[in-house]
Amino acid sequence: MELWYTDQHTDNVRFSMKVEKELVSLESFYQKINLLKTYDYGKVLVLDGELMITERDEFIYHEMAVHVPMAVHPKVKKVLVIGGGDGGSARELTKYDTIEQIDVVEVDAEVVRICKEFFPEVSDSLSDKRVKIHFEEGIRFARGIYDEYDLIIVDCADPYGPAEGLFTREFYGICWKALKEDGILINQHESPYYEQHARSVQMAHKHIQFSFPYSTVYQCHIPSYPSGHWLFGFASKKYDPIKDLDDEKWNNLGIQTRYYNTKLHQGAFYLPNYVMELLEI
Amino acid sequence: MELWYTDQHTDNVRFSMKVEKELVSLESFYQKINLLKTYDYGKVLVLDGELMITERDEFIYHEMAVHVPMAVHPKVKKVLVIGGGDGGSARELTKYDTIEQIDVVEVDAEVVRICKEFFPEVSDSLSDKRVKIHFEEGIRFARGIYDEYDLIIVDCADPYGPAEGLFTREFYGICWKALKEDGILINQHESPYYEQHARSVQMAHKHIQFSFPYSTVYQCHIPSYPSGHWLFGFASKKYDPIKDLDDEKWNNLGIQTRYYNTKLHQGAFYLPNYVMELLEI
Repeated sequence: MELWYTDQHTDNVRFSMKVEKELVSLESFYQKINLLKTYDYGKVLVLDGELMITERDEFIYHEMAVHVPMAVHPKVKKVLVIGGGDGGSARELTKYDTIEQIDVVEVDAEVVRICKEFFPEVSDSLSDKRVKIHFEEGIRFARGIYDEYDLIIVDCADPYGPAEGLFTREFYGICWKALKEDGILINQHESPYYEQHARSVQMAHKHIQFSFPYSTVYQCHIPSYPSGHWLFGFASKKYDPIKDLDDEKWNNLGIQTRYYNTKLHQGAFYLPNYVMELLEI
Repeated sequence: MELWYTDQHTDNVRFSMKVEKELVSLESFYQKINLLKTYDYGKVLVLDGELMITERDEFIYHEMAVHVPMAVHPKVKKVLVIGGGDGGSARELTKYDTIEQIDVVEVDAEVVRICKEFFPEVSDSLSDKRVKIHFEEGIRFARGIYDEYDLIIVDCADPYGPAEGLFTREFYGICWKALKEDGILINQHESPYYEQHARSVQMAHKHIQFSFPYSTVYQCHIPSYPSGHWLFGFASKKYDPIKDLDDEKWNNLGIQTRYYNTKLHQGAFYLPNYVMELLEI
């Protein structure tokens, strides 16, 4: 017997991986959670049928979410991660000694429990004493917080299910208030390629622009995600992602990465024409 | 009934597209040729079961193969395209008035015939009076040519079938001889991501380095190709792909592109750490 997991990239495009065995299959209060062991992508976390992270290429996503803002902002002490219950963003953040507090706000405690048990390479740093996990909805947690965080990372699922509220103008306004006067907001920004995603990308960018004076996107190659061409949003009150990049300082930190470097940091902001047109950049 | 075409990215990873109808299915002297009309990728050319180009994203491949060297080399007059029977590379080349001759060397006349009939958006410029099509093997055509071309583009299939010879040290040596003293060689260089491809990338790069003083790779996002993270090789006798980029001159040409621009040109050479390690760059 062969077991294959298929992620539906669009109604007419499918991406499938051969599965060695299913490690977890359960239904939490919020969603269906599956953890698969695949041949080429290692362990794979699937929520409500949609691929979240794979052991093989999660480093690209998490390095790009974290090190881009960290190489720009001169002194990040307090970080809010919305979503990110797998612990990958926290893992990259804990590489910085200067960070004092990391609040991870994950709605589903089962995701954290399963990642801690089956995905220690990703989730181990959730036990770091600077990391506090809050089992709560991201919007509810952030609402009413003012001038507190240097960096907010929105590390969430696609905007078609429970994460829909994390792509709204209201939510980005809440983030703006929760950030200090020189804070940076990073959000997973979908792919510009397939039409359905492209519309989300366009809307999210418009909503962020409404609140933040600096707002652009940067790209990376994530093979297991639809089209492989993935965007993050970089929004900030003060810092420009290229002019304020302190490459010398970052390189002197000696942080080990497999995807990110400060040259690639710059290149990630040099977008294809069709993406600039989509976002009116 | 639903019809799906599946491209096997590895033994354990599949990429599938829903097919509206099959337009062509035949066996030429060299290979099996299929042309499919798909829902999300438009027309798709398949040779021996492997996806070659799609109507939807071929612009990325062909723009990146052509405009990167054209924005670096100051006066390209004569170009050799090895493979490229679909006409996409020729189409981008004919946008330059300064180019006087484009030799397209395609082994399989049936590929050209089918693309002319079914893929006019890609193949139309094969009728440009500067384009000469030679139905011959690439190595055989280039062997014995000395000091003749300003630019050679190796626009071929994966190195596991008929195109295997186009990834050898011998072939790159032949290209070196066929190029003028300031010539540039561009070759499609596979993906660095999946292990099987990564080994080809590594070998091809070593072989090119053996002949050319300047040798590096650059990347782009091609959603329909394995991993979506695609490389081209840039090898040259004289020009550096970034230092010798004449962005002002290129931008003044007013050439319309949907992916390429001179900022992205630079960014394409800023590679992830794991790719630099693979290639020892």
